[in-house]
Amino acid sequence: MQRRDFFKLSAMAGLAAALTPAARAFTIPDPAQKAVLKISAQEGVVPGNNLKEKFDFMEANGIVGFEPGGGGLGGRVEELKKAMEGRKIKVSAICAGFKGVPMSKDKAIREEAVESIKEIMTAAGALGSTGVIAVPAFNNQNGLENKEGREVMVKDVLPRLGEHAVKVGTRLILEPLNRGEAFFLRQVADAASICRDVNHPGVALMGDFWHMTWEETSDFAAFVAGAKWLWHVHIASRKQRRMPGEDGEADNYVDGFRGLKAIGYQQYISFECGSTGPREKTIPAACDLIREQWAQA
Amino acid sequence: MQRRDFFKLSAMAGLAAALTPAARAFTIPDPAQKAVLKISAQEGVVPGNNLKEKFDFMEANGIVGFEPGGGGLGGRVEELKKAMEGRKIKVSAICAGFKGVPMSKDKAIREEAVESIKEIMTAAGALGSTGVIAVPAFNNQNGLENKEGREVMVKDVLPRLGEHAVKVGTRLILEPLNRGEAFFLRQVADAASICRDVNHPGVALMGDFWHMTWEETSDFAAFVAGAKWLWHVHIASRKQRRMPGEDGEADNYVDGFRGLKAIGYQQYISFECGSTGPREKTIPAACDLIREQWAQA
Repeated sequence: MQRRDFFKLSAMAGLAAALTPAARAFTIPDPAQKAVLKISAQEGVVPGNNLKEKFDFMEANGIVGFEPGGGGLGGRVEELKKAMEGRKIKVSAICAGFKGVPMSKDKAIREEAVESIKEIMTAAGALGSTGVIAVPAFNNQNGLENKEGREVMVKDVLPRLGEHAVKVGTRLILEPLNRGEAFFLRQVADAASICRDVNHPGVALMGDFWHMTWEETSDFAAFVAGAKWLWHVHIASRKQRRMPGEDGEADNYVDGFRGLKAIGYQQYISFECGSTGPREKTIPAACDLIREQWAQA
Repeated sequence: MQRRDFFKLSAMAGLAAALTPAARAFTIPDPAQKAVLKISAQEGVVPGNNLKEKFDFMEANGIVGFEPGGGGLGGRVEELKKAMEGRKIKVSAICAGFKGVPMSKDKAIREEAVESIKEIMTAAGALGSTGVIAVPAFNNQNGLENKEGREVMVKDVLPRLGEHAVKVGTRLILEPLNRGEAFFLRQVADAASICRDVNHPGVALMGDFWHMTWEETSDFAAFVAGAKWLWHVHIASRKQRRMPGEDGEADNYVDGFRGLKAIGYQQYISFECGSTGPREKTIPAACDLIREQWAQA
């Protein structure tokens, strides 16, 4: 009986020890589904002279998402489809590449953007892409002032883009940038507020850790605010926009990853960054860092 | 021994049952200190013909914070101090009441605001108030455009106000409003970004559940983004800005309270709202609702 008592006490102590951290930490409701980690990379980031070489490298490093630019995408659909055949790689988001400015002061330039984005969306839909990334207006693009710009985006530009997106099976992904690049839209929570107001299944948003470094006080809170509209994430080192890890201790994404886990994020985290290189080493190291910090989150 | 075994097994089962929900829910790090619930009310909200009657009512209902307006506060310091003697009531924040417009296009009107707010701050400090609430510019106040306005606030107006605030023992509390009242500052995360940039111990922010209803996609995320700068909260019903509970099911603050608990909030939640009355009944009912939802959060 002494031995049995000992085991029971050990079991109790073990149970208490195992559960104490969880019981002591602050709890919030579980997401509807468990988040998944899917690493993606922009086309220009991946080493290789052609798609085959790039995809081989990606597969060897567990990178499952491919983010091409939107420029000329319509003419690349078949090439990309063929290159992905039999691979574990899918197209994640499409990075901009359109003509015009969605939030320009000039209506004709806004319309040019709408038509150009629609064209890219059609190709994006054919490729099964999660969405086309767009910035309403960069600081140097003669955009509308914030208040009027928001109204034009919410009431006119975004619903029309969303409509086409849904028709071709993809979506528009609004990207907040840092103030140095685009003052209008700087925070994920603001993009979320826009998406809520637009209230269209074809209009979503993303977060970019690079810009978030300067604009968000909490990566965790930013992603939780983005929640159901958060459809893409960009990642880079946090001082020089290189590969995660190249800025040492600054490259901490745990708080943000915790936010992604809290909302049950199902989409991609995609490299948009340079590298001091060689990329054959810095990219696998960045993937390891992301996986480690994801596990910690 | 059987009896002892039974108790041990019960203890184990009880421990497992007690800890399972926590272990299953999503966990985030504990705040540095446990949040406290301190209910406050604006002077005009509390029934009573004088401070004695108002304070008696507040104490009877466990309302521990008193939020007067800033207009003429300097002349009321002694009266307020005397009325609070021997009471459990403290002055929470001071609600605006200043002249001028901090983010006016007109520098003279900005300076008028700075001087007026400083004067109120001096009285606020004498009363031990947590801070003076200010809106940079209402929509109809001829404020600077967003980009220039932010720069003027961050680089000029706010540091000077913060400096005086610290000198007299209080702080400035920036209040985001809904877009119908003030487009410039609508989200708690944006106010937090401003506070981070100003980086002055005398400059803080608040959240108002009324405005947050229209501008935030997540009350929880908003407060987490506000974190260490969050120094006051206003509360009202979520459809008509009356006493919490007067709009029925819409008056849910649990997600926001969870955010306050997540950051270990130590400051006041203050009634800024009307009531269909009678207030002698709607205020105690609102206090009960807040306490219940706080416990749920």
